[in-house]
Amino acid sequence: MEIFCSKEVSSGLCILSGDEASHCVKVLRHREGDEISVIDGEGTLYRCRITSASPASVSAEIISSESGWGAHPYRLHLAVAPVKNNDRYEWFIEKACEIGVDEISPIIGSHSERKIFKTSRAEKILVSAAKQSLKGAVPQIHEPVSVKEFILAYGDEGDSCDMEAVQGPGPLKMIAYCFENEDYPRISIRQAMERYDGNEYIVMIGPEGDFSPEEAGLAISRGFIPVHLGDSRLRTETAAVTAAEAAYFRWMQ
Amino acid sequence: MEIFCSKEVSSGLCILSGDEASHCVKVLRHREGDEISVIDGEGTLYRCRITSASPASVSAEIISSESGWGAHPYRLHLAVAPVKNNDRYEWFIEKACEIGVDEISPIIGSHSERKIFKTSRAEKILVSAAKQSLKGAVPQIHEPVSVKEFILAYGDEGDSCDMEAVQGPGPLKMIAYCFENEDYPRISIRQAMERYDGNEYIVMIGPEGDFSPEEAGLAISRGFIPVHLGDSRLRTETAAVTAAEAAYFRWMQ
Repeated sequence: MEIFCSKEVSSGLCILSGDEASHCVKVLRHREGDEISVIDGEGTLYRCRITSASPASVSAEIISSESGWGAHPYRLHLAVAPVKNNDRYEWFIEKACEIGVDEISPIIGSHSERKIFKTSRAEKILVSAAKQSLKGAVPQIHEPVSVKEFILAYGDEGDSCDMEAVQGPGPLKMIAYCFENEDYPRISIRQAMERYDGNEYIVMIGPEGDFSPEEAGLAISRGFIPVHLGDSRLRTETAAVTAAEAAYFRWMQ
Repeated sequence: MEIFCSKEVSSGLCILSGDEASHCVKVLRHREGDEISVIDGEGTLYRCRITSASPASVSAEIISSESGWGAHPYRLHLAVAPVKNNDRYEWFIEKACEIGVDEISPIIGSHSERKIFKTSRAEKILVSAAKQSLKGAVPQIHEPVSVKEFILAYGDEGDSCDMEAVQGPGPLKMIAYCFENEDYPRISIRQAMERYDGNEYIVMIGPEGDFSPEEAGLAISRGFIPVHLGDSRLRTETAAVTAAEAAYFRWMQ
């Protein structure tokens, strides 16, 4: 089924513009009276009937709607360092969307080789992956921030890194830290998710050179649980997909 | 750590030839006396000292060896239909190797759009992925076979599709079948793996158009358990990686 995405949904109408409108009219040759399916990117699917169609703009009246379309039963925020080969990061973005993710934050660490990341391409990939995998919600991609900024934005005040933190309250915050370090004994992401009874996860995945000890120490001091992703040595983008799969399997019946 | 792969290991010597030799001598400029690490692709890592080096052939005496290097505690055979976009299949091959897989069989179904698959590129990808993820064993890629041939080769004689089959003996055989079909109630791959107490898995993943009802029926009649991979609608290559992750998480401590 062909699905369109519209940010302009109001008072019984969906408006397609830009690429969505031209694809609808020029490529698929939809005309007034045709029925189309539209997601709003917030989680709702609309069945609509086209009332006016031009390559620049398509108006369609809403016939029915389904909220939480293709939704998953948890909230996952993946904070992942961009990798040298940007194709690999874009691959991770597509796959995470298919499996189930809500927010993605590119984070730049002191060991990062790639210090810049453009979100515009990522947004397009997420829209098409959401449509392709039949999800009404398009995951949000945030502008890149430094690892330190991310930790300070999402971490807890003061030192709270103990297993109590695994119990919540609030999201289960994890940092996938590769260095074996006696100061920070790690549990597996699977164990951490099993011990936590909530459904909100934040996972930090570092660059090829891993987090710096300072970054890991700061994260842990702000309530991020140091986790490992099993015994295999995974590339950054594979680690990020594995974190998405960990949440997916935690909730699989 | 730079790792080489040699199929010629015998009587205390590792021989590198072809690309491995030229990479060792021309690119990395290794010379007689240098120490190198070599995997045999069967699971063993060798520390060696070079005794003679030319761009065509490198001989190295074995100093020490470690069997089961980077091994995982289960055996996984993924039988996956090639997809239209071959890059996506090659991506799956690389990721499955990183996560942990032992055998890959390209299977051609009656709904397959891509009917041919060349294994030569896949072999190269698997060798480099095994080296990159520090595994001594290079997963085996089989020549493509039809879905029917695969089922007849790996299935059981006679009808044995019931939950008893989940208990074994022998490998847990699963077919990820998308069609909702009352004749074949499905359980999740996670449930199937949890109910089974062995460590050998075979998972069949179909093409974009799914298996045909005839293929699914034959597989199920030969002891393949119909499973689903959760509620997300996954592309073929994502489904295949998700099956690899299912085994990985099943054995994650």
